[in-house]
Amino acid sequence: MSLPSLKMNETHDTSLRSWVQSANAENSSFPIQNLPYGVFRRSGSEEAFRAGVAIGDQILDLPAAQAAGAFSGFDEATRTAAHAACGGSSLNALMALTPAAWSALRLALSRLLRSGSAHQTELAACLVPQAQAEYDVPAVIGDYTDFYTSIHHATTIGKLFRPDNPLLPNYKWVPIGYHGRASSIAISGQQFRRPVGQTKAPDADLPTFGPCKRLDYELELGIFIGGGNALGEPVPMAQAEDKVFGLCLLNDWSARDVQAWEYQPLGPFLSKSFASTISPWIVTLEALAPYRCGWTRPADDPQPLPYLDAPTLRESGAFDIELEVLIQTAAMREAGSAPERLSLGNYRDAYWTVAQLVTHHTVNGCNLRPGDFFGSGTLSGPAPDQAGSLLELSGGGKAPLNLANGEKRVFLEDGDTIILRAVARRDGLPNIGFGEAAGTVLPARSLA
Amino acid sequence: MSLPSLKMNETHDTSLRSWVQSANAENSSFPIQNLPYGVFRRSGSEEAFRAGVAIGDQILDLPAAQAAGAFSGFDEATRTAAHAACGGSSLNALMALTPAAWSALRLALSRLLRSGSAHQTELAACLVPQAQAEYDVPAVIGDYTDFYTSIHHATTIGKLFRPDNPLLPNYKWVPIGYHGRASSIAISGQQFRRPVGQTKAPDADLPTFGPCKRLDYELELGIFIGGGNALGEPVPMAQAEDKVFGLCLLNDWSARDVQAWEYQPLGPFLSKSFASTISPWIVTLEALAPYRCGWTRPADDPQPLPYLDAPTLRESGAFDIELEVLIQTAAMREAGSAPERLSLGNYRDAYWTVAQLVTHHTVNGCNLRPGDFFGSGTLSGPAPDQAGSLLELSGGGKAPLNLANGEKRVFLEDGDTIILRAVARRDGLPNIGFGEAAGTVLPARSLA
Repeated sequence: MSLPSLKMNETHDTSLRSWVQSANAENSSFPIQNLPYGVFRRSGSEEAFRAGVAIGDQILDLPAAQAAGAFSGFDEATRTAAHAACGGSSLNALMALTPAAWSALRLALSRLLRSGSAHQTELAACLVPQAQAEYDVPAVIGDYTDFYTSIHHATTIGKLFRPDNPLLPNYKWVPIGYHGRASSIAISGQQFRRPVGQTKAPDADLPTFGPCKRLDYELELGIFIGGGNALGEPVPMAQAEDKVFGLCLLNDWSARDVQAWEYQPLGPFLSKSFASTISPWIVTLEALAPYRCGWTRPADDPQPLPYLDAPTLRESGAFDIELEVLIQTAAMREAGSAPERLSLGNYRDAYWTVAQLVTHHTVNGCNLRPGDFFGSGTLSGPAPDQAGSLLELSGGGKAPLNLANGEKRVFLEDGDTIILRAVARRDGLPNIGFGEAAGTVLPARSLA
Repeated sequence: MSLPSLKMNETHDTSLRSWVQSANAENSSFPIQNLPYGVFRRSGSEEAFRAGVAIGDQILDLPAAQAAGAFSGFDEATRTAAHAACGGSSLNALMALTPAAWSALRLALSRLLRSGSAHQTELAACLVPQAQAEYDVPAVIGDYTDFYTSIHHATTIGKLFRPDNPLLPNYKWVPIGYHGRASSIAISGQQFRRPVGQTKAPDADLPTFGPCKRLDYELELGIFIGGGNALGEPVPMAQAEDKVFGLCLLNDWSARDVQAWEYQPLGPFLSKSFASTISPWIVTLEALAPYRCGWTRPADDPQPLPYLDAPTLRESGAFDIELEVLIQTAAMREAGSAPERLSLGNYRDAYWTVAQLVTHHTVNGCNLRPGDFFGSGTLSGPAPDQAGSLLELSGGGKAPLNLANGEKRVFLEDGDTIILRAVARRDGLPNIGFGEAAGTVLPARSLA
């Protein structure tokens, strides 16, 4: 069985330091052991978006580094990967390569950016401060699939709809997923109008039309597919992680009242497709290797069917990634108050692993393409205050949350900003940060 | 209210004849009043796929026609549209233009291809016989949405699952839709392996894994979006048809046993994403203008909510398009027998119109992009033998269909080819044919 992503190498050495000093700060999200990819340009400029790597509070401009000859001394795999990364305004060409190529480029970047690098002088000229950058969605997303991998979320939501039968019979067998809307995925900083649509109150005879009254966020991780598979050629578990380029944050905003009225029998549609917000940086599976952990599946649950099983991944198929949701209301912003935490959870509590999602998605022959995107589904933990949505935190909209400034929230109000953050942490290891995915609700359009 | 697609013009003149003689045959699918677009190349060649227009049994090679100067005498709108159509291996750039531009190009093509055209000699050299061509999916499909617009299909399917409550309460209010998988959409001629997956028989305790046992087709029309809308800016009914480039055929192959086990609570997923087959030619709304008809909504059904209503479209928002499904089994192929008809229906029986689908899809602010694709959903008519799937024709898999050669079918067998055809017909008007969408089931991959 080939599990290259489990392999540790010199890029994981905890003693590595960067000549970009901000990367060495204890609380840096982007130490030299991270090296996530994104696409960026200088804020407000007309520059083309291009590939960059986060290092401390800076971005290494990859095309500029390539033009400066930074990769010319490396082997062909590295030069090919660098060339692919620098060819346009998205990372699809880099994603189309193999884990070996991704690993070669990561090793080169680690060597170029570490203290003592002979390339410090020319590369220092290729840095752009993150504070002066703006970002775009880092890949052309061909298809977006959203999963449902938190059994705690599925159970809590199920209880609201079916108190006597919260978890559907297929949940522990099938990694439930559905196709999502790719066109409305935008990068952190997205501001979107409160959606308008049809809803029907449970006690109403007829539906009505108007702005959503139960607007929610969903805390998810996003998974960017690399490589891909031909139509009709499934990806077995042993190769599944080879098809994963990396992870980011995803807020799958949801209009709960629209969802309740529209979702039978074919699933959520307009309740989700008005906006989805992702973080700019893609953290590679290789960077996350030291933060792997085993499945949390209870012993008396059914074991996965053989096509979804792999002994090695039982021990290491999950990831220990801390997940945080914060809110900043308009009133907080006006008062200059910092965002307030709504929940803190961890990705290790998901029921299905990344590899299982890839294998399940392709088992019928469905083809994945480089740049395709998965959502994990709302990541709620076992404790009520680890829930990844307001619908859960408010007990189905019945128990308002009390914010520190005296405001209350059942669902989102106009002007609310929701911020998702994630970080992989382990004692003795550097923090591998994901940055953040922030989005703000604007008032609904006028229906006059 | 602007409804340019209702306007008739000289391209609809029934007396027009083409110098391409095969276009004038009474049973031609592609008379000069049709002029559908596709992308093609010579079969088996390494040529780039490029835009073409079907005329009789020929294809006008658009880049070749442009290179021959055919469009140079036309106005700027026409030249711009021709330039967009000729710029690559997909029609997205042409689709990104406006109905006025599409109309200008159609007028030019009508004039160039009609009898007496001064361009006959140079354009005759730009024809490729359809018999010598192969086709590709004519657009890069950003997002694919499948709807559920046949109330007859929804009712029949609903009866199988809920005999006492066949039609869900939202059906007559909400044009139900869900996101589909774009990556596995392929062009007519697609051959695909029978999908493999998890299923659970109703009386079984546990799910099993293996080849699909209830493989089905779904007769649909496909809708290619042109123009588009910005995120947050809905398309009202009065502009909805301006966002539609044209229609084709779609077979949304379905694994019914996989679907039954996986679809709650988020809808169909792997039961659909293994393959979808479309026809090569996109028939424009302008070509279909003379075949419009009124809604068939019963008088005692609820009227559409105002955002989905438009008086003009009540009279003309539907299309009179005959829809046919044929099967050719392996035994028929070996015996040299022609395909056998399974059903004959009509698109006019759909409950929701194309314009309503566009407006509903965008009412929440969701953005559509040129090249996006909608499926109509399975188009079953009011009579049982007008059903658009085997699941319906076989009464839920209980009543086998008897084929003329003595074979029986409940669901699809390996080697079966399903052929969808469509034609808009009216007394005194030429037939506007859609060509066909054919696909063949191959045996499942080995699970040894």
